[in-house]
Amino acid sequence: MVAIDEVMQNAYQAFQSYKHYSPKQKADFLRSIAFEIEALGDTLLQQAANETNLPIERLKGERFRTTNQLHLFADMLLEGSWVEAVIDTAIPDRTPPKPDLRRMLFPIGPIIVFGASNFPFAYSTAGGDTASALAAGCPVVVKAHPAHAATSAMVFSAIQKAIATNKMPQYIVQHVTDTSFEAGKNLVQHPLTAGVGFTGSLSGGKALMQYAAEREKPIPVFAEMGSINPVVLLPNAMHERAEAIAKEYAQSIVLGMGQFCTNPGLILGIANEYMPVFLQTLSEQIEKAMPAPMLHKGIHDAYFNKMKNALAQKGVNLVQQSKQPINEMDALPTIATVEASVFLANPLLREEVFGPYSLIVQCADLQELLKVWKSVSGQLTTSIIGNKIDFEALPELIDIAADVAGRLVFNGVPTGVEVCPAMVHSGPFPACTDSRFTAVGIHAVKRWVRPVAFQNAPEALLPSALKNENPLNIWRMVNAQFTQAAI
Amino acid sequence: MVAIDEVMQNAYQAFQSYKHYSPKQKADFLRSIAFEIEALGDTLLQQAANETNLPIERLKGERFRTTNQLHLFADMLLEGSWVEAVIDTAIPDRTPPKPDLRRMLFPIGPIIVFGASNFPFAYSTAGGDTASALAAGCPVVVKAHPAHAATSAMVFSAIQKAIATNKMPQYIVQHVTDTSFEAGKNLVQHPLTAGVGFTGSLSGGKALMQYAAEREKPIPVFAEMGSINPVVLLPNAMHERAEAIAKEYAQSIVLGMGQFCTNPGLILGIANEYMPVFLQTLSEQIEKAMPAPMLHKGIHDAYFNKMKNALAQKGVNLVQQSKQPINEMDALPTIATVEASVFLANPLLREEVFGPYSLIVQCADLQELLKVWKSVSGQLTTSIIGNKIDFEALPELIDIAADVAGRLVFNGVPTGVEVCPAMVHSGPFPACTDSRFTAVGIHAVKRWVRPVAFQNAPEALLPSALKNENPLNIWRMVNAQFTQAAI
Repeated sequence: MVAIDEVMQNAYQAFQSYKHYSPKQKADFLRSIAFEIEALGDTLLQQAANETNLPIERLKGERFRTTNQLHLFADMLLEGSWVEAVIDTAIPDRTPPKPDLRRMLFPIGPIIVFGASNFPFAYSTAGGDTASALAAGCPVVVKAHPAHAATSAMVFSAIQKAIATNKMPQYIVQHVTDTSFEAGKNLVQHPLTAGVGFTGSLSGGKALMQYAAEREKPIPVFAEMGSINPVVLLPNAMHERAEAIAKEYAQSIVLGMGQFCTNPGLILGIANEYMPVFLQTLSEQIEKAMPAPMLHKGIHDAYFNKMKNALAQKGVNLVQQSKQPINEMDALPTIATVEASVFLANPLLREEVFGPYSLIVQCADLQELLKVWKSVSGQLTTSIIGNKIDFEALPELIDIAADVAGRLVFNGVPTGVEVCPAMVHSGPFPACTDSRFTAVGIHAVKRWVRPVAFQNAPEALLPSALKNENPLNIWRMVNAQFTQAAI
Repeated sequence: MVAIDEVMQNAYQAFQSYKHYSPKQKADFLRSIAFEIEALGDTLLQQAANETNLPIERLKGERFRTTNQLHLFADMLLEGSWVEAVIDTAIPDRTPPKPDLRRMLFPIGPIIVFGASNFPFAYSTAGGDTASALAAGCPVVVKAHPAHAATSAMVFSAIQKAIATNKMPQYIVQHVTDTSFEAGKNLVQHPLTAGVGFTGSLSGGKALMQYAAEREKPIPVFAEMGSINPVVLLPNAMHERAEAIAKEYAQSIVLGMGQFCTNPGLILGIANEYMPVFLQTLSEQIEKAMPAPMLHKGIHDAYFNKMKNALAQKGVNLVQQSKQPINEMDALPTIATVEASVFLANPLLREEVFGPYSLIVQCADLQELLKVWKSVSGQLTTSIIGNKIDFEALPELIDIAADVAGRLVFNGVPTGVEVCPAMVHSGPFPACTDSRFTAVGIHAVKRWVRPVAFQNAPEALLPSALKNENPLNIWRMVNAQFTQAAI
């Protein structure tokens, strides 16, 4: 595969030049990408709508999220503390003399980005993986997603403009339009590849891990994969507001036809007198929910297959499906129930049904609910609906929730991922391949950096972040104290 | 393997309790381990000397390093900013409302520690991996190293006293004395195992990676493996002080009979008029170097095999070996030279020869030296001997050095790893399996933690590190500003 080799050689050369751009220049570059994406205007939105069936309003929101994300990383670069500068000055008269040691984070090298089908902007060509890798100082090779290749090409044209305007290395971002599996495999296995970012299915993520495992030199693969995002309905909250909860969750289940990795696919409740109220309201809402087209035929067919297969399992009872007019490519909003004992015994029911489907697990009591909750560890989010009385009755609540997922949502819905420094979009396997990192929020940059220490380095050779005078004016840990002061 | 399963179940139970201990309690526990190790006094030193052949003075130093390391992590726990608390407060009147999001690092679960043969204290039972995992909040299962099993058992007895004194969960640290490969494999592959720390050979590290790759659920394996720690001799420094450099390096090569992962196994210089001076002095020093016994027969035999094999390669010329009396278990300090072109063509010469052996690569000019340097990327350290003129002539110096290794040593020797917050003991593969983490320094804790975000959590449910009033008084990033203030 000469073509892939050329791409990776280009990426490596770009890496060498990009190291010498300042944080300010990198920040300007990220903001410029955001500007050029906006400059594509309605043409871009229309192209994405054509390829993904997503409504223009949703795409507008996603575009905002994408540009916001680029600005967030630009802000992070200017603030500068993300490099984790730690300085321990010398103690020459100690025996043996203590050397001067200074460490900070350096970029690891070219990153391959596999975009998601369900986020043509925010998790694709100029999405979170690309933005975080560029902020880290790494070149990016994007493999265009076949489901929205033209949208990807348009976004790449915006990046190219930003590269030219900002006099960045020509190949700092490259776009591979060969959408074959073989091309993906060759990218992951190329010797110059330093890391992989992926958003997609469990099978896709596992395939990439396998390709990477076959390499002579291991590289980090961060894959964000499936999640069913368990929601826990605690009894006192249900007593107070079962109807309101059902209405809020009906909206979350059908939002974007359930094509979010944070879609609430599993709801755990206690089979007491409030459950029928909850189910009745949820059912009414799902019955009225308007079907809408799914992203593409593959996802549409997979949804119906997985949903029907789930409903065909012994003990699973269909509660409601939308009764509104449905077109060929539309999803069909669906809810079902199952007893906890049946759920615990059938691993298939833990698999993600990507689309507007949610399974309500009816538990005999709180203890059984906790048991079911613990059994589904490996999620991006888990949501807890409860009030003060519920929380006081459950001292183990946070321990369990933090074992289950990377983000704990209280009295809200998991859909809608805020792009902000504190966000965690990650979780134990199978939600992610490495729960120590996040795909969203400024800490996403940590996937693409490694620490380097300088021992007794002459001041002139130190990177700006480590120089005595602290020219970047960043927060550093100097002799075990956080400070912005010079040394 | 019922025994291993019982161990891992115990570790998991201990994990659940240990979560509820405060940073202060964990810090006291670490300090108590240090105290109990010291309380073992000369008996411990003598036992280690018997098992490892290491001199008592060296073992005293290593014991100090080990207790110092425990205190360093205790200090880190009390300082508290290592949890990376990031708080973005709510903006309720935004459309859509911005939720309150707070993230911090949580422990990942039971960690398996495989100690090193060459550091019976500092990288073993109560060494850096154990100390960092306990600080992170993770239980530890130590697999005793067969080469110093009795020393390991004594150190474990010290840990057990500290567990009792501090009323820690009984199984927060466990000691597996079954030293078979099978036991190691079963520990790595147990479903409750959350991570692995290893210090040893490349083949050992690769085996653990392979065991981990066979798991259904991937886990992080941090293995610190081989390194030849290239030293670059720049021409102007050689002009100034070739003799002094040779004397300093002769000491570093034979220190501890070269049984350090930071031993300088490769020296790159230019074949100009200063090279003969350097080689002459180095040769005189090596001739006088006193052989001493190696850690155990396996390491002794491996040293002689690897050293003889390296010397047998075409184009490799023996320069000098120690001419002092040598006993059965002793290493034989040895230096050899090779032309750069020969070195570049023979990958075997890049392999670590664990012991007091160093290969001097003679390069035609600076460009060839840089080529050789780049070719050996994947090191724990790289050392640069140069002066102002050398550095000014080499603008690419830091770029190359940082690609090669995790720690760049200027005008010094790589042996002697300072235990301090800024230390990086890591590097690109094959030095380590994941260069994004370090085995030494407070950041070693990051191997065993994952971020968890709380969205709109009631104040009462938040961990102390994330509460409004900041009861731990730690540095946090609140709305993108570093602060110790309450909210």
